[in-house]
Amino acid sequence: MNFCPNCGAPIEFRVPEGDDRKRNICSATGEIFYDNPRNVVGTLVERDGRMLMCRREIEPRRHFWTLPAGFLELGETSAGGAARETLEEAGVQVRAPRLFNLIDVTHIGQIHMFFIAEMVGDHYAPGQESNDVRFFAEDEIAWPQLAFPSIHRTLERYFADRAGGHFGVHVESLAAADWHAMALDRRPRDVG
Amino acid sequence: MNFCPNCGAPIEFRVPEGDDRKRNICSATGEIFYDNPRNVVGTLVERDGRMLMCRREIEPRRHFWTLPAGFLELGETSAGGAARETLEEAGVQVRAPRLFNLIDVTHIGQIHMFFIAEMVGDHYAPGQESNDVRFFAEDEIAWPQLAFPSIHRTLERYFADRAGGHFGVHVESLAAADWHAMALDRRPRDVG
Repeated sequence: MNFCPNCGAPIEFRVPEGDDRKRNICSATGEIFYDNPRNVVGTLVERDGRMLMCRREIEPRRHFWTLPAGFLELGETSAGGAARETLEEAGVQVRAPRLFNLIDVTHIGQIHMFFIAEMVGDHYAPGQESNDVRFFAEDEIAWPQLAFPSIHRTLERYFADRAGGHFGVHVESLAAADWHAMALDRRPRDVG
Repeated sequence: MNFCPNCGAPIEFRVPEGDDRKRNICSATGEIFYDNPRNVVGTLVERDGRMLMCRREIEPRRHFWTLPAGFLELGETSAGGAARETLEEAGVQVRAPRLFNLIDVTHIGQIHMFFIAEMVGDHYAPGQESNDVRFFAEDEIAWPQLAFPSIHRTLERYFADRAGGHFGVHVESLAAADWHAMALDRRPRDVG
């Protein structure tokens, strides 16, 4: 951040009085601009025991597989945003979303929230950010071909809870080391 | 937003290609600046059956009562941020935070998350954003003197769950109308 988005004056990066960390501060007016974590919201949708997944058409991780998810927008609820993303990316309408997993991904300043939701109707089709939409059985999932570690972790938890007969609400965090430890493939390949 | 924070060029507020809502876009480089909901994190801490609460020393709602809470910072977990705010505002160290209530406050673009946590030691003292810290029994809480409706709602849920003998994990939303319906006082007064 170099210029004040309000008045265009140069920005200073320093600790404001009474604060304990550096902030972007307008050199003309003293206004402080805070940078905070952003929320990514998505769904876990089953049909006949198989999981709805999308193949990404956009970077990062283009052509890797993901649960439908994206950034929460102003004015929507977290569950509502998850439903919107599912419609946009997979063409699937859902109902009754309930929180399943909340993951603090601190090294990239994000919270990822996944909601278990029910599919309404039979329609599915890739949206403009996907190039394929499929339903995978647990043993069909190509784990190293997943787009992001939060997807990996959430699917693991989902199948574990499903096997146990009860879906809980989970809160966890993923650090940079956890991401690397999952050893996701660097290149996409055909699956299934 | 009037000026690009990167290069200082004028900002255009329009719908980018392939998007469905207006964004702030740099007129020189085309860079898009997204505005997303922010997270407020706080705790519910009991001592001898009484709730830890702080009287705000800062606006908005200066001199009204709140649970310790504040904006989640980059690089911290939601539970970690809630613990930090509790130490900063109430001087109370906590452990073992677990998610209790997540509230989408859509009309102000925020998510409020409250964690039940255990007090470590006996120390408590107002921080620089509080001018009083006290522990209230359920029947001592001056409901119209609460700072924000999300505090009101979260305390209601907490006491209901406590009476029922089980703390769940709740997800709900509060709209502008809900805030007004709570009829919080417009002026602070002495309580307790």
